[in-house]
Amino acid sequence: MQFQLTTEFIDQIEQLIVQRDGRALKELLSEIHFADIADLLEELNSEEATYVIKLLESDITSDTLMELDEDVREKILDRLSPKEIAQELVEMDSDDAADVIAELDEEVQEQVIEEIQDEELAADLVELSQYDDKSAGGLMARELVKVKETWTIAGCVREMRRQAKNVTRVHSIYVTDKEGHLTGRLSLKDLLTAPDKAHISDIFIPKVDYVTVETDGEDVAKLMQKYDLEAIPVVDEEGMLVGRITIDDMVDFIKEEAERDYQLAAGISEDVEADDSVLLLTRARLPWLVLGLIGGLAAVFIMQDFEAALDRYAILFFYTPLIAAMAGNVGVQSSAIIVQGLANDVVKGSLFSRFVKELSLSLINGISLALLVVAFNQIIGQPVNVSLAIGVSLIAVIIMASIIGTFVPILLDKRGVDPAIATGPFITTSNDIFGILIYFYISKLILHF
Amino acid sequence: MQFQLTTEFIDQIEQLIVQRDGRALKELLSEIHFADIADLLEELNSEEATYVIKLLESDITSDTLMELDEDVREKILDRLSPKEIAQELVEMDSDDAADVIAELDEEVQEQVIEEIQDEELAADLVELSQYDDKSAGGLMARELVKVKETWTIAGCVREMRRQAKNVTRVHSIYVTDKEGHLTGRLSLKDLLTAPDKAHISDIFIPKVDYVTVETDGEDVAKLMQKYDLEAIPVVDEEGMLVGRITIDDMVDFIKEEAERDYQLAAGISEDVEADDSVLLLTRARLPWLVLGLIGGLAAVFIMQDFEAALDRYAILFFYTPLIAAMAGNVGVQSSAIIVQGLANDVVKGSLFSRFVKELSLSLINGISLALLVVAFNQIIGQPVNVSLAIGVSLIAVIIMASIIGTFVPILLDKRGVDPAIATGPFITTSNDIFGILIYFYISKLILHF
Repeated sequence: MQFQLTTEFIDQIEQLIVQRDGRALKELLSEIHFADIADLLEELNSEEATYVIKLLESDITSDTLMELDEDVREKILDRLSPKEIAQELVEMDSDDAADVIAELDEEVQEQVIEEIQDEELAADLVELSQYDDKSAGGLMARELVKVKETWTIAGCVREMRRQAKNVTRVHSIYVTDKEGHLTGRLSLKDLLTAPDKAHISDIFIPKVDYVTVETDGEDVAKLMQKYDLEAIPVVDEEGMLVGRITIDDMVDFIKEEAERDYQLAAGISEDVEADDSVLLLTRARLPWLVLGLIGGLAAVFIMQDFEAALDRYAILFFYTPLIAAMAGNVGVQSSAIIVQGLANDVVKGSLFSRFVKELSLSLINGISLALLVVAFNQIIGQPVNVSLAIGVSLIAVIIMASIIGTFVPILLDKRGVDPAIATGPFITTSNDIFGILIYFYISKLILHF
Repeated sequence: MQFQLTTEFIDQIEQLIVQRDGRALKELLSEIHFADIADLLEELNSEEATYVIKLLESDITSDTLMELDEDVREKILDRLSPKEIAQELVEMDSDDAADVIAELDEEVQEQVIEEIQDEELAADLVELSQYDDKSAGGLMARELVKVKETWTIAGCVREMRRQAKNVTRVHSIYVTDKEGHLTGRLSLKDLLTAPDKAHISDIFIPKVDYVTVETDGEDVAKLMQKYDLEAIPVVDEEGMLVGRITIDDMVDFIKEEAERDYQLAAGISEDVEADDSVLLLTRARLPWLVLGLIGGLAAVFIMQDFEAALDRYAILFFYTPLIAAMAGNVGVQSSAIIVQGLANDVVKGSLFSRFVKELSLSLINGISLALLVVAFNQIIGQPVNVSLAIGVSLIAVIIMASIIGTFVPILLDKRGVDPAIATGPFITTSNDIFGILIYFYISKLILHF
């Protein structure tokens, strides 16, 4: 039942573009969903894609543009005049239009806004572009259906029909007082099942969840998830209803945040995709690798310091990759659990009880792993004191790694820094260094070299 | 404007429970959202929580139960009789009720279903529980608003008002033919703006996205995101409309999947939270650490094999943590990008072109990092041939790691295995071993030991 983008279809489209056969193209694309047209455009070069965008009606292409990957969209917009861009923006929801404007060069931004005839929309866009794009103000759209407490149901339905034409999807209907302060909501279901003669003040629900323009996007996401909201109204500092955020925008936001955390944990510092250019991918990956390299070089330094032990205890040096790997793995595990817990607000209780928990957890893991190492050492015929040194320092390293992995994110979070940056290479590298240092010091104590 | 769960409030609730003061408790909790009551119950012990659940009306507690963490819910359900559980289930959406039933012991399941008076619901629940919980059948709810093509608008509105009472939220209204085959949809907006005298067949949209009960949950999520759907109907093999999936359920699903991928990447094999027990956390973490340990022990073996080089080239051994770390980091980066790309369908083009891309990417990264290492080696006064050996093998190791990191997930995906399991410790460990092996072989070639 779904549309499948085949190579034949792409070839056919490309041919029609070469022949400049607008009529056949229009007909061929008329039955296709804008999200599928976006997929198609991503397969074309930007000149071809621009031709298609210019050919189709703005009410389709405005949606198509929003579905495109940011770099593809940028290339197409570069080929459009400010007037053509303005035509697309007028058809978009205001939150999308504001996002697109933010992607343009400042000079072009002004030209585009000047081309927008609808002065209210132009003012909305200027206002929306001033909010941080991760705040509720930056995520909200201006379009919504609102009714006033004082209206009758009949008047309300008339007014709603008018307003609904500008709104892609009606979720809740918001209720305000005469001045425009948010006072409640009206659910569609209540409206459907209400007697025709009721008044708004009779049937509206005076309790409504809302956020302010300043609220952080992650908090908006949590609120909407917790209370299963499909849309949430946004008010300004005075409590005036200024916009709403819908769940479909939040789905994109939640997914992007999850992917970013995952990339940070994997040591990728910019938002990249598998199909980005080699240069972009290098820029996202190389800095973390350099960090890891510095950690490795620190390990070289440390081992040079203990070189005297090489003659009698060469085996200690063979264990360094294992020690570093364990320190890194334990640190990443601990930090991942804490970062997710912080994001979902499940990290409760005192820091001390968390410390005790991590300590017992790492003791269990450490002792189990140390026993395995000692057994292995006996098999390969190492002296007992060497096995003891490696086993004890392994336990110490695991305890250290899990404490660092747990508390660095917590401390960052307390200071208002995103704890996700502490996962991945950062924790791995620092744990590598500390791990090897602790390992050699403890071994030195036990083996007296 | 939001409810804040304070220690004082919890204390007050606990005191009222001890005093068995049901009336005061009911009054205190009457104004509180069910999701907040769930947060409260998670702070109480299971006996206290069960008291609250039994005290409040089922239409509140059924929602509260669904918001609870699975282990908390399980403890409470253990304290309820099959009849009491059945009372809760009747108030739930059928998808939630089916999920709860699946969590019960088989024996209790049967007793609970016997206690459900509504035979249609009981049959629905039995049917729903048969689907895989990650398929559309397992995710869907039976409740929806459907109208028949042949109805008049007047009859439709009457019927919809009746149906809407059983549905928490009305999204699209689905249209079927006389037999119940899905034929289209009716949007609420169209209904609001349609002239009162139209017929269903005049205003319904004969095109509708749908999935079958067999469709994989991830595909449902992609479809709903791509086309910005708030609900999608589910049909059986014959095309009969059997249920619908709403976006709020998909938000939870998407988030859980993202968290699971993240945990897999961090080497955590079970779905755990920061507040789970030490035992559960150990079970989720220890297996991956043992895997890492095996990798480390393999490295010990390899180095023992090259022990002869120790006298002249001890520095080579000092570099092993760096080599292992680089192999691991590069592998994790590559696999994370590919796993995300596969999940989002952006991995296009031939395997060969991807190979060329990874090769050029790792050459750039490899050469940059090798130059840094050579510079460092010159500073600490190592001979040029040793620097050369380390630099060249570093490049080779990075190439190998990025090829393995890229193609293992692709191959797993082609064989229908979730590629996310290839990220994290699995790739790190194998890359550690191969990395150190390659490193010593190349060094041996260059330094002739």
